[in-house]
Amino acid sequence: MALIGFGTVGAGVAKILLEKQDDLAESTGLRFVLKHVVDTDVERKRPVALPAGVLHSDLERVINDGQVSIAVELVGGTTIAGEITQRLLAAGKDVVTANKALLSERGREIFATARQHGRCVAFEASCCGGMPVIGAIRTGLAANRVAAMYGIVNGTCNYILSEMSQQGKDYATALAEAQAAGFAEADPTLDVDGTDSAHKLAIMAMLAFGREVDFGAIPVEGIDGVDLEDIRYGQELGYAMKLLAIAEQGEGGLSLRVHPAFIRAEEPLSQVSGSFNAVSIFGDAVGHTSYYGRGAGMMPTASAVVADVIEVGRGNAGRSFAATRGLGVSGEQARLCPAAEVESRFYLRMLAVDRPGVFAQIGQVLGSHGISISACLQHESEREDWVPVVIMTHEACEGSVRSALAALTQLDVVKERPVCIHVMTPPGEEMQ
Amino acid sequence: MALIGFGTVGAGVAKILLEKQDDLAESTGLRFVLKHVVDTDVERKRPVALPAGVLHSDLERVINDGQVSIAVELVGGTTIAGEITQRLLAAGKDVVTANKALLSERGREIFATARQHGRCVAFEASCCGGMPVIGAIRTGLAANRVAAMYGIVNGTCNYILSEMSQQGKDYATALAEAQAAGFAEADPTLDVDGTDSAHKLAIMAMLAFGREVDFGAIPVEGIDGVDLEDIRYGQELGYAMKLLAIAEQGEGGLSLRVHPAFIRAEEPLSQVSGSFNAVSIFGDAVGHTSYYGRGAGMMPTASAVVADVIEVGRGNAGRSFAATRGLGVSGEQARLCPAAEVESRFYLRMLAVDRPGVFAQIGQVLGSHGISISACLQHESEREDWVPVVIMTHEACEGSVRSALAALTQLDVVKERPVCIHVMTPPGEEMQ
Repeated sequence: MALIGFGTVGAGVAKILLEKQDDLAESTGLRFVLKHVVDTDVERKRPVALPAGVLHSDLERVINDGQVSIAVELVGGTTIAGEITQRLLAAGKDVVTANKALLSERGREIFATARQHGRCVAFEASCCGGMPVIGAIRTGLAANRVAAMYGIVNGTCNYILSEMSQQGKDYATALAEAQAAGFAEADPTLDVDGTDSAHKLAIMAMLAFGREVDFGAIPVEGIDGVDLEDIRYGQELGYAMKLLAIAEQGEGGLSLRVHPAFIRAEEPLSQVSGSFNAVSIFGDAVGHTSYYGRGAGMMPTASAVVADVIEVGRGNAGRSFAATRGLGVSGEQARLCPAAEVESRFYLRMLAVDRPGVFAQIGQVLGSHGISISACLQHESEREDWVPVVIMTHEACEGSVRSALAALTQLDVVKERPVCIHVMTPPGEEMQ
Repeated sequence: MALIGFGTVGAGVAKILLEKQDDLAESTGLRFVLKHVVDTDVERKRPVALPAGVLHSDLERVINDGQVSIAVELVGGTTIAGEITQRLLAAGKDVVTANKALLSERGREIFATARQHGRCVAFEASCCGGMPVIGAIRTGLAANRVAAMYGIVNGTCNYILSEMSQQGKDYATALAEAQAAGFAEADPTLDVDGTDSAHKLAIMAMLAFGREVDFGAIPVEGIDGVDLEDIRYGQELGYAMKLLAIAEQGEGGLSLRVHPAFIRAEEPLSQVSGSFNAVSIFGDAVGHTSYYGRGAGMMPTASAVVADVIEVGRGNAGRSFAATRGLGVSGEQARLCPAAEVESRFYLRMLAVDRPGVFAQIGQVLGSHGISISACLQHESEREDWVPVVIMTHEACEGSVRSALAALTQLDVVKERPVCIHVMTPPGEEMQ
């Protein structure tokens, strides 16, 4: 085996492979020998001691070492990591990777190279760290047609939203604390803007729906615009706000999107707090299943990497990879549902003039766009002029809601553009 | 393929194999042909139409059909089902089964026969229906040493306890309604007395700890003795009562047990209500992971059976089975921790005389047995003589608690033997 990239996760993988070599040999019948660990930095101290001669910076030695059959790519990024992965596959090595950006943005070429050389790419660690959701989709739920799948797949965002919901902190404070606590990077952009969640969604959707997914076509909205006020109103109405990565199979095609959404307090996902991840998957046979665990961190991610190494060693990963559609087998692109056609429930909040007849005007605009109200909330306000009005809608077409919002903004009794947040409803369980 | 046993789950499996044959061929590259469905009753109407000639009652035709490579055993029970499974394996067929009783009570001989003939036994469906927990333990968490695992693995009991907790119904009423709603059998004994949960625990423990488990050695307590009063006091203290199947690796060995237990309201499992199942598994690398889904029912269980059929068809199940310890490879028995040595927190409720100094007496008895109190609860009572006193202890040795209870029962200020219920505490996350 060879390990390319000796950062936090790399150190965790080396730790497991070295410290548990006998355990693993006993429990799997396979003995994994870590022959190379390649990193540009061979000086920095890591929390694991490698045998002499294992750590070096020369990738060529791995490429040319015929004894290396499994290579773990933990370099990260989509450029150098992509070239390295291509070369490892071309050199006849199976590749285990945790690189979600690479697979979601350049998966097609990576998978094609693997097939061309009869190798496989295993990537349990690319989504939700140690939580074995990739295996669940690919193996455990293989008999199902997936109706919907949505999850909390970014621990940083969930930590921030949990702090806002539970401690009443505002976004900036919660983010600063997440950074101080090590749950957020110094530059948290890719986490808080939803990009990281979209990377994972693209990969999970490829497997769940057996089609290639154009990562660039996924609409993404992060949590950076979330207002504590809306979290509070949501709680009052019995909902929790989470950043969700969503895949829904509908009439109009497959809807893939990432955005903050309200979920009912009774749903398992609403209870997931802190840096944990959780995904709910609805299959036509199995119904509702959920998976929960640590989505990041040295040991949880290393746990998934080594699980893949074992499956590759057994030959199982190769057999599954060869047969799995969506990973360059069918070549078919998923037919994506245009955002405007997505059916969903919505939470709307607007500042309205506190005067008789105003609510009727608002309801009339919504009604004329075919949007019906399921619940609403208006508190007595200390301010005599403008009052916040919160409305929960029934299922409505996103396009109609957008134009209704534009119309509402035109009303002189409504101040500013209303806030609009999706409300998730699990697919009916009648399918069971 | 052949299907032995054409009951509810059998019909679900046939439904998926027939209606999704093309889907499965497309998504897995394998085409499964259902050639035989064997059942003693070939007349009864089932919710699926089989091609002519497929349904018959002659097992011999399957045994002697060299074209049949995968047989699904859905007969149930441990006697006839055992003989059938042995014969199918001896005839060179891989066997997929949902039979938890058979594998937990006679697994050793079944697995031995499979190995002797180079076949495999796949049993995802034997534990928690469609929730892919077997695959998670065996594959997703393969790099972990499991520290603890506990779960809600019987939907009937969870439905009853949920009704008691949420609707305030007593046990008898909740059971009657569960039977009316079809969540409980006409004879619910094996569910409510914990036997069914113990069957699943034995199987999951074999995989998680890589040792053979003596099913008969698992202490089992059901929910038939649960008192609504204790559920209410537990809720007041921030706990939910669940019937848990528990496996904990400790100094004294592996503790396997099934009993009602209180879990903190913050834990994912406490939120699992109705007939759903959920299991929390704590690995040394991955930390806390949880799995949630429907533990029974026609289609959820069929979903797991077909998932296994696919893995057997790919050859993955065989390769994993051959290497998996605990399934007759090592032959080693798990070293079980004697019940008396199990460390746990406990909930105690007793009727005590409402008189000064009584609480001191009770505390003194507990203290003298090395049991310290973490919380207690005593409401003002309308009755002037006896009052219920509820005590939550810190970690204590079960043996000491039992003798403390005996001592308390001797006190003339305590009426009757106190109620004693385990309180689960998740293993410390410092391991991560």
